[in-house]
Amino acid sequence: MKNSTGVYLIGALGSIATTVAAGVMALRAGLGDTTGMITATSVFEGVELVETPDLVLGGCDLRKARSSRGNPIEPREVTGISPRILKALKRELAQYRAGIDPGVSCNCGEAIEALGGCAGRGKGGLRKQIEAIRARIAKFRQDRGLKTVIVVNLASTEPPLELEGCHQSLGRFEEVLEANRGEKVRASTLYAYAAIGEGCPYINFTPSNAALFPAMLELAERNRTPVMGDDGKTGETLVKSALAPLFTCRNLEVMSWMGFNILGNMDGQVLDNPGNVQSKIRTKDGVLSKILGYSPHSRVKIDYVPSLGDQKTAWDFIHFRGFLGAKMSMQFTWQGFDSILAAPLVLDMVRLAELAKRREEAGIMPHLATFFKAPIGAEVHSLHEQFAMLAEYAQGARQAPRTLSAAAAPQ
Amino acid sequence: MKNSTGVYLIGALGSIATTVAAGVMALRAGLGDTTGMITATSVFEGVELVETPDLVLGGCDLRKARSSRGNPIEPREVTGISPRILKALKRELAQYRAGIDPGVSCNCGEAIEALGGCAGRGKGGLRKQIEAIRARIAKFRQDRGLKTVIVVNLASTEPPLELEGCHQSLGRFEEVLEANRGEKVRASTLYAYAAIGEGCPYINFTPSNAALFPAMLELAERNRTPVMGDDGKTGETLVKSALAPLFTCRNLEVMSWMGFNILGNMDGQVLDNPGNVQSKIRTKDGVLSKILGYSPHSRVKIDYVPSLGDQKTAWDFIHFRGFLGAKMSMQFTWQGFDSILAAPLVLDMVRLAELAKRREEAGIMPHLATFFKAPIGAEVHSLHEQFAMLAEYAQGARQAPRTLSAAAAPQ
Amino acid sequence: MKNSTGVYLIGALGSIATTVAAGVMALRAGLGDTTGMITATSVFEGVELVETPDLVLGGCDLRKARSSRGNPIEPREVTGISPRILKALKRELAQYRAGIDPGVSCNCGEAIEALGGCAGRGKGGLRKQIEAIRARIAKFRQDRGLKTVIVVNLASTEPPLELEGCHQSLGRFEEVLEANRGEKVRASTLYAYAAIGEGCPYINFTPSNAALFPAMLELAERNRTPVMGDDGKTGETLVKSALAPLFTCRNLEVMSWMGFNILGNMDGQVLDNPGNVQSKIRTKDGVLSKILGYSPHSRVKIDYVPSLGDQKTAWDFIHFRGFLGAKMSMQFTWQGFDSILAAPLVLDMVRLAELAKRREEAGIMPHLATFFKAPIGAEVHSLHEQFAMLAEYAQGARQAPRTLSAAAAPQ
Amino acid sequence: MKNSTGVYLIGALGSIATTVAAGVMALRAGLGDTTGMITATSVFEGVELVETPDLVLGGCDLRKARSSRGNPIEPREVTGISPRILKALKRELAQYRAGIDPGVSCNCGEAIEALGGCAGRGKGGLRKQIEAIRARIAKFRQDRGLKTVIVVNLASTEPPLELEGCHQSLGRFEEVLEANRGEKVRASTLYAYAAIGEGCPYINFTPSNAALFPAMLELAERNRTPVMGDDGKTGETLVKSALAPLFTCRNLEVMSWMGFNILGNMDGQVLDNPGNVQSKIRTKDGVLSKILGYSPHSRVKIDYVPSLGDQKTAWDFIHFRGFLGAKMSMQFTWQGFDSILAAPLVLDMVRLAELAKRREEAGIMPHLATFFKAPIGAEVHSLHEQFAMLAEYAQGARQAPRTLSAAAAPQ
Repeated sequence: MKNSTGVYLIGALGSIATTVAAGVMALRAGLGDTTGMITATSVFEGVELVETPDLVLGGCDLRKARSSRGNPIEPREVTGISPRILKALKRELAQYRAGIDPGVSCNCGEAIEALGGCAGRGKGGLRKQIEAIRARIAKFRQDRGLKTVIVVNLASTEPPLELEGCHQSLGRFEEVLEANRGEKVRASTLYAYAAIGEGCPYINFTPSNAALFPAMLELAERNRTPVMGDDGKTGETLVKSALAPLFTCRNLEVMSWMGFNILGNMDGQVLDNPGNVQSKIRTKDGVLSKILGYSPHSRVKIDYVPSLGDQKTAWDFIHFRGFLGAKMSMQFTWQGFDSILAAPLVLDMVRLAELAKRREEAGIMPHLATFFKAPIGAEVHSLHEQFAMLAEYAQGARQAPRTLSAAAAPQ
Repeated sequence: MKNSTGVYLIGALGSIATTVAAGVMALRAGLGDTTGMITATSVFEGVELVETPDLVLGGCDLRKARSSRGNPIEPREVTGISPRILKALKRELAQYRAGIDPGVSCNCGEAIEALGGCAGRGKGGLRKQIEAIRARIAKFRQDRGLKTVIVVNLASTEPPLELEGCHQSLGRFEEVLEANRGEKVRASTLYAYAAIGEGCPYINFTPSNAALFPAMLELAERNRTPVMGDDGKTGETLVKSALAPLFTCRNLEVMSWMGFNILGNMDGQVLDNPGNVQSKIRTKDGVLSKILGYSPHSRVKIDYVPSLGDQKTAWDFIHFRGFLGAKMSMQFTWQGFDSILAAPLVLDMVRLAELAKRREEAGIMPHLATFFKAPIGAEVHSLHEQFAMLAEYAQGARQAPRTLSAAAAPQ
Repeated sequence: MKNSTGVYLIGALGSIATTVAAGVMALRAGLGDTTGMITATSVFEGVELVETPDLVLGGCDLRKARSSRGNPIEPREVTGISPRILKALKRELAQYRAGIDPGVSCNCGEAIEALGGCAGRGKGGLRKQIEAIRARIAKFRQDRGLKTVIVVNLASTEPPLELEGCHQSLGRFEEVLEANRGEKVRASTLYAYAAIGEGCPYINFTPSNAALFPAMLELAERNRTPVMGDDGKTGETLVKSALAPLFTCRNLEVMSWMGFNILGNMDGQVLDNPGNVQSKIRTKDGVLSKILGYSPHSRVKIDYVPSLGDQKTAWDFIHFRGFLGAKMSMQFTWQGFDSILAAPLVLDMVRLAELAKRREEAGIMPHLATFFKAPIGAEVHSLHEQFAMLAEYAQGARQAPRTLSAAAAPQ
Repeated sequence: MKNSTGVYLIGALGSIATTVAAGVMALRAGLGDTTGMITATSVFEGVELVETPDLVLGGCDLRKARSSRGNPIEPREVTGISPRILKALKRELAQYRAGIDPGVSCNCGEAIEALGGCAGRGKGGLRKQIEAIRARIAKFRQDRGLKTVIVVNLASTEPPLELEGCHQSLGRFEEVLEANRGEKVRASTLYAYAAIGEGCPYINFTPSNAALFPAMLELAERNRTPVMGDDGKTGETLVKSALAPLFTCRNLEVMSWMGFNILGNMDGQVLDNPGNVQSKIRTKDGVLSKILGYSPHSRVKIDYVPSLGDQKTAWDFIHFRGFLGAKMSMQFTWQGFDSILAAPLVLDMVRLAELAKRREEAGIMPHLATFFKAPIGAEVHSLHEQFAMLAEYAQGARQAPRTLSAAAAPQ
């Protein structure tokens, strides 16, 4: 089993991580299918990827899976998964939860720190915290006999970090670490630095901009480690990136594009905080002007509506101008389960990050742009162009020599 | 002026044709801009196309532009054009309407024939009617000193024609004409046959399937005439062709896609007739399964709502299945002016048909697929792939030697 | 226990009946609350009603609860009830299903007869079928020791019955029965006649018009039996009856009101049949003109979308004219579980029919108008006026002497 | 003519006021009808009201109708009125605009003061400003030979004024005026005080709470002057007040009700300012809990979208719980012209205020509750109950002796 692949999830007790874990277990048990995973389609036929049911799951979380008396804490309702499946996986999910490491919190804003269990930034300094994270990842690898570990950041959105000169080069950034300047980093910085330091591919599925800044990309290049981010594209922005090109294809002028998002999961609760929501709005907002080539009047609002649970609902109103100045409009309502939409993307990227690592690629993975709201280093924002990039990569990977162990059969 | 280009519109008094005419006049007078026309964008930079304001307009219609006493009949309200522009163009539009030829009706269904002025199929037989149409087009060309005339079918939707062996080859089809078998043709057949016979590029902007069947395409090839159809893609189907690929890009399974269309113009009135609406539903319905690669439960309904006038409103409900079988949904409402959306496409295609004719292309123009709901001979149905085909064609045309007269400056 | 109240459900294995049964059981077991039941609110404080958990459930169905080998047939997915509750009630629901009588089918249209188990109209004639139904109701009463039995028609929608002279008076109608003229009745006719004959209050929750025509109302008066119908108001029409008065209150002119309904349960399947859907559209369509006092352009469409299951979705588009002729619009989407919305109304009406019977009221119960799309004998169609009628009735009933057994405590 | 009625509009150059003026002129010229006015319906048959075309229009505004060189400034586009009507009334509207008095600004927030022409609070103190307003109203009355003048506040929304002890009694409030404490008043305070001082009925159509606080109501009682407010109910809240009772009538629990409003007129521009928008959200937000009897999770958002002009668009999402805990939802989109919806309400209230004055009523007019989002002194918030109050008042007024001059014929 020493060739097998592990997934280390940051925010491992949250909705998305739980759905990722349940998904792997369900596939293993024949309780679900691969709908929602693009790596399971004919696009990747002939590309040797790790089998999804073979993935080994672990991770860390700020929250605790057990109460102070040692009793397991039931997971928050993850509404997207059917009760039938949840019930069948109950024991296995409990086992997964029991094995989750403690997480670190560092300069993440009050909303996240209120989740409890914060390690604080004082405890032994930044270097020491990084070492602790590395040790946990290494232990996960060793205990479970893993060849490759992929680290995926699914933690709550942090407030934006103001990037400065010290984030632009690895040399200068390491001075920040030496000087233990906690205000220049966030928890996601420590995780990314630790993961890449361990040679683990790092996927930044959150909007937090404190993980994959230029200095970190330099580290990824140097350590021959593939990385990608930011902010998984699962709902309103996904539709935007498919729909905005329509207006370009018809030379219709988008005057205004207003987006109202309501959701009720933990993500929504954290985003109810003005600081944290800024990160999200920033990644959502850029897509439009990048596709259209100009900036219409556009706002993205996010509101917390507890009764919705994991069911994210978005209403977008698009006001556009056509021939002879006529004004017209389009509106859409998207009603999807956040975690159900996100989890298969995480699994896709884990499989593709393992492939990239095996192919000895390093630094950003631009072919994963289609999975992100603000793909790092990508100039391409329309969904179909991003998808074409992914398909082209798959085409190339198909021709490459197979290096995956004989044990792992091609999908 | 003998190099100039004419546009012969079938259904010349209808909403779309009026908007096409008003558009040309408005551009000429500096009252509007080219929003909505893709040939006016950077995609066509460097491609020599006829200038839109230089187009010469004419056509025919079943309806009359003058009452029996000779007074001009005011056009039905074309709500999309602003009253300001309509007023400024009042005299010029009246002049355009006064010059419109009578149209022919033949086996078009009661709804169309009720519009009045039907020539019937008896009058001298099919060959004679074709000759009459050719004579009118030829007169338009000569009177206005035109080098090229593009014929565009904007007439109301006919009921579907059952295509048989006799429509598959030109030889067999000409036997139908000789035998004067009116039940094997519709008015659109006669127009297409006449136009192509005159060497005029023919654009079938309606869903009617009786114009560009295989025998007619054979004629187009033989006469070195470019043609394209069917059914201009301006609203719900346009959105469908941009949005359906999203589900493919994410491996989400579309279970149901229901579309409800309401509109209040003459088009809606004719489509209120079960026979005629079939043609439209047929072209609208195919798009989805062709993009998705499977056939979800899907219906397209069209209802006549007089109060809406030209403002077409469509509500689509999409029910889809994601990871672990979770059901989710999306819905959109599209509110656009039918003619405002259609007219710039007509102008784009007229310019591109003139280019194709000048480049000595013949038969179907697959690069125009993006403009149609059911593009003839095209395997590509997703909007962005169609658009890429058009852009590639533009790229090729840019390198081609310029053959347009010196008088017509490049756009 | 001889004072207790029974509910005899026609269509007892369908979604609504199952939800009614599950509701009673859930309330009994403390698994649910009375949300959705108006008789459980302060409006009925002080009115002595039978306790919902005390209701005794039975009924009949065309379908079978057991296969030919005697194995129980699992109910179709009733998506509105949470799996948690369904699981807790599994045994009790199976017991309920096992006790269901066979139903009769008579001239109900092919869609219903295809459900199987049709008794046909031949078997012994109309009188004999009526006797059989009466016998089953009487047995239910005796076996379960019931004082009062309320019969509720929850069967699938029949095609409309053309009402003629013979349906206008009891005398003439009984001649039809004697003459065994099956084409003048439908199954719902036989059920209503039998129920009223047994002195059981009869609630016609379906749109079928063959149950409560004038001759039947005459019978109800004569037998001192309260009855009410037609067609439970649970979704689009409910919204309509709350919203249409807005336009009256502001003197805004509704030009068009279009309604598109999609649903996927058995009801939807039966309504996919043009004959049966007519009954439904008829009851839905009248509401608008009765509230507004004029008839706008209005259509109601119903489409079967299997993937939706019990989740009824309706999109309504309202086009209206305001001051100085300006055109404006409103649209709404309603997404509700059909059975979840219907079941509490059934329970409300059962409780109120028991009260009416106890109060020795006879014939139609106009105060129940608020529960129906086409309330029999009611001139009032706006929701709040109907509600005021109900509240006024409750006020009156509060003052009335209590005659319910001491065993049944007031709610 | 000395019996005629004048309307003095505060904010006389804005969209609503312009539509009020155009409406009166259009009715006079036979260019429009009374759609949208409830006083023009059978509800008020037999009630003697001033004829709408006889109303004499005037008012004041902070903005100028003429440039510094004396040229007329064209009104902002008021999109709801058709260009045809605007054109026919062009001269008359210009005349109206030329006669508008300057307005006062006082402690109204930067957004309003930026409109220019602010008199500031310094100029001679509060008493002096009040005198100036009274003088202008008195001059309007005298110059135009008016018996009654109704003052209507249509000015932009001011930020909320914190009401204190000094606003609770007239005696204490007049001390504020004496002491010239400008921070305890806003411009709307001065207008209301002046109008009531002149014996003119005062309608507060804006959300500003600084006009009709208890001290002012005391003045109105003392001066025998009818008044009413706050905040005309024209769109989203109108729908809310018709729709929320539905959930009560069915005992469905509203868990969340989210409202997103977008608009592009001057009103929207002023509301883009956080201070000013607070007033509006406050009046909009209360309706729900008052109708339902409990407070669901509810937010009202207002965003400025310039391209929309006067076309206010609102999307509301309602999440509700039904029987057995099932979650369901409803959403609506309202697309209406703000001024077109507001103007007929203003005219209705002017006619009813004139009637009230003539009938010697004083203080608040609770029967006008239906026209307001936050009706002063009214416990009734559901639209139909408010409407019933108005109808009942009309019934009473019908029986009252007629005192209107013989010249003014009953409607």
